[in-house]
Amino acid sequence: MRNSVFFIFIGLLFCPPATFAQEWKSIFNGKDLSGWVLKGGEAEFKVIEGAIVGTARINTPSTYLCTEKKYDDFILEFEVYLSNELNAGVQFRSDERNNGEVYGYQCEIDPKKRKWTGGIYDQGRKGWLYPLSRNEGARDAFQMGRWNKFRIEAYGNQLNTYVNGTQCSRLVDDQSSDGFIGLQVHSIGDRNKKEGYSVKWKNFIILSKEVDKHIKLDPNVSEISYLKNELTDREKKNGFRLLWDGVTTEGWRGVRSNEFPAQGWKIEEGMLTVLADEANSKGEHIVTMDQFGNFELVLDFRVTKGANSGIRYFVNEERTVSACEYQILDDKKHPDASKGTNGNRKLASLYDLVPAEPLSSGVKKDPFKGVGKWNRATIVSKDGKVEHWLNNVKMVEYDRYSQMFEALVLYSKYSGHENFGRWDAGSIMLHDHHDEVSFRSIKIRELND
Amino acid sequence: MRNSVFFIFIGLLFCPPATFAQEWKSIFNGKDLSGWVLKGGEAEFKVIEGAIVGTARINTPSTYLCTEKKYDDFILEFEVYLSNELNAGVQFRSDERNNGEVYGYQCEIDPKKRKWTGGIYDQGRKGWLYPLSRNEGARDAFQMGRWNKFRIEAYGNQLNTYVNGTQCSRLVDDQSSDGFIGLQVHSIGDRNKKEGYSVKWKNFIILSKEVDKHIKLDPNVSEISYLKNELTDREKKNGFRLLWDGVTTEGWRGVRSNEFPAQGWKIEEGMLTVLADEANSKGEHIVTMDQFGNFELVLDFRVTKGANSGIRYFVNEERTVSACEYQILDDKKHPDASKGTNGNRKLASLYDLVPAEPLSSGVKKDPFKGVGKWNRATIVSKDGKVEHWLNNVKMVEYDRYSQMFEALVLYSKYSGHENFGRWDAGSIMLHDHHDEVSFRSIKIRELND
Repeated sequence: MRNSVFFIFIGLLFCPPATFAQEWKSIFNGKDLSGWVLKGGEAEFKVIEGAIVGTARINTPSTYLCTEKKYDDFILEFEVYLSNELNAGVQFRSDERNNGEVYGYQCEIDPKKRKWTGGIYDQGRKGWLYPLSRNEGARDAFQMGRWNKFRIEAYGNQLNTYVNGTQCSRLVDDQSSDGFIGLQVHSIGDRNKKEGYSVKWKNFIILSKEVDKHIKLDPNVSEISYLKNELTDREKKNGFRLLWDGVTTEGWRGVRSNEFPAQGWKIEEGMLTVLADEANSKGEHIVTMDQFGNFELVLDFRVTKGANSGIRYFVNEERTVSACEYQILDDKKHPDASKGTNGNRKLASLYDLVPAEPLSSGVKKDPFKGVGKWNRATIVSKDGKVEHWLNNVKMVEYDRYSQMFEALVLYSKYSGHENFGRWDAGSIMLHDHHDEVSFRSIKIRELND
Repeated sequence: MRNSVFFIFIGLLFCPPATFAQEWKSIFNGKDLSGWVLKGGEAEFKVIEGAIVGTARINTPSTYLCTEKKYDDFILEFEVYLSNELNAGVQFRSDERNNGEVYGYQCEIDPKKRKWTGGIYDQGRKGWLYPLSRNEGARDAFQMGRWNKFRIEAYGNQLNTYVNGTQCSRLVDDQSSDGFIGLQVHSIGDRNKKEGYSVKWKNFIILSKEVDKHIKLDPNVSEISYLKNELTDREKKNGFRLLWDGVTTEGWRGVRSNEFPAQGWKIEEGMLTVLADEANSKGEHIVTMDQFGNFELVLDFRVTKGANSGIRYFVNEERTVSACEYQILDDKKHPDASKGTNGNRKLASLYDLVPAEPLSSGVKKDPFKGVGKWNRATIVSKDGKVEHWLNNVKMVEYDRYSQMFEALVLYSKYSGHENFGRWDAGSIMLHDHHDEVSFRSIKIRELND
């Protein structure tokens, strides 16, 4: 008896572990481009010494070498070599429209100063979904002038990327559940200097069975989710809750009122929309029933042309409704954008106090996605330190208990508002400025130790 | 031979160490007040159970129980018990004038919120010389409702205090080289509530020979020196140098000039004085030949009635002379004090940007010593973080590279001054505003790692 138990135990030890059962398959034969097809522009793709080499040409759109086959859940690994400033990427779960126009998720190869290689860009659709401004530690994972190992995991709505073992993106998005894989050589427009710049890929292997068993994941990397009015497991675990349920008015009321406003707001198709004023309607701001001091608030908003709204926080209705405000505005068409002092009334600014500007490393461009598109506002408040983020780029940071904040308030239109911005906690308020603006996916977590 | 060397060695080991030779003497016999004499007011001093008990009375000035004997260099130890909010202290190297008015150094017993017990106050003369705002860690050394051990070291111009083993003050001052020791019960005015409040002292011992051999010293405690145009050894060791030699114009010149101004300034009696304008004189600001970025600047200034001056720093003459300014002003009489925004043009403010206010723990009172008195300005600049101190109390703090600083500048009169306050380094500039203001003891050290 004893001996047989012993042998069973030994036998278990020598069972091949699950990883041995992985069925990795190559999707590039190392010799020619069979199984691959060209889409979009006319950049050149060749096989040289076992690698696919993509070379830029002027005056042609972005060009994609795509798998004929489509993939849903998979783990893809490959290597990339880049020695010059050529933007490139690897599409996945992608598709085409209008005869060659590729769209869908792209794992970026981004040699620009911001160094967002490994971030996820939504080509031809929503733009940056996971910029590395949310994971700055991963910006140095990719190295120029050497082979870099990439890994993309796509499982259900979870999309993860890794470069040289460092997790870069952790995205949750449900726009596309399958599609082809495609290698991008980005358009270089008419920049002669970049003519002939090239990028190399090799050693493509893919796993498409039992994908969930092989998901890696760095617990320190932030997840970004675009699920509509729905929390991911990780968000729940991190203490997030929906501040609006997507359907009812629960948790919200009019300012200095027990009721939700009878007019001015509409709930439809998972959107909370403040309506443009009609002659006979009367608008009202709405506030949360709950109060928040240390918190992280995330919400998506969509402005119509020329619209004005805003997210106030630390709102104390008893004393005043004036409070710190994340400005929401169509900067191009609303006159308030040119008022205030040096742009401190523009989108994402701390209204009338601190002008918004990209603060994340290497970012210069305004991250606003445009009127009629969904944009993400994030407000983080912890022990006096407050940040405004727009589409995952940090735009404002200040310390509400500092001497400089007080000095700034005294210069602003809030001079004379005692204790402005310094209440321990307050409601969150959404502005009704009589312009149509929609909100959804309003999530909050408290940041108490 | 070998043996005799050995015994000499052993002999040295058993020599009594220097501490054994200390000649501590008692200055209170534990029974009566012989050797002590009362000065000033009529608070009561009695001997009870081996301790001297001082008890407050209303409507009498501060009262002092003083040694008949005078001491120059000494180390004094004693114990203090306080159980109520009665201000008290121990005078040393003190004297009297006008029949009972005691003046001189006082080791404070300070039960107020600021907790400056162990600090050194210059009674009847210059006020606070060593406030614990420069040594906040020592504010908790003294405890109410128990016996606390005090130690005062006076050696040459060095004056150190300790409470329960914690060094509180490290002062260098040369006003008085000897005087009596005196126990103070502070006046309580007409506050009936404090009538009968008491303070107890016991176990006085004094050492007055070979004092230098027994000086303790905590190397982490800042030294404050009031020597005129002269550096202490410790200041030299810490990298300080005189920015003005007290005699010549060396190191200084007129703005955008190679020469020191021919008019408007006077050097006399160790003071650098900007003169009030006469009809025929023309004033000019002066700047240092050297440039400073990370630095600690300490200087003493004296304003005349209604006077205006200032200390600019990070001055870039090529581009502009407008730069960050430590405002120097007679707030009471100069009209600029009420201009600007909420007092941001008052003494010690970051001119037109950040209003000065006491920031050190527990301090409420404006630390200005008055027109015609010497006051100390300190400016610390390190990696963007800048502080203004007035008479050793922190009054302003800001980060010149922060987004808030930029937002504040844009609201101020410096809006449009490109790169204001952000040059890596610049000259130090003293303002000639055509009002008489004197400077001395101008010291600087660079704070590079």
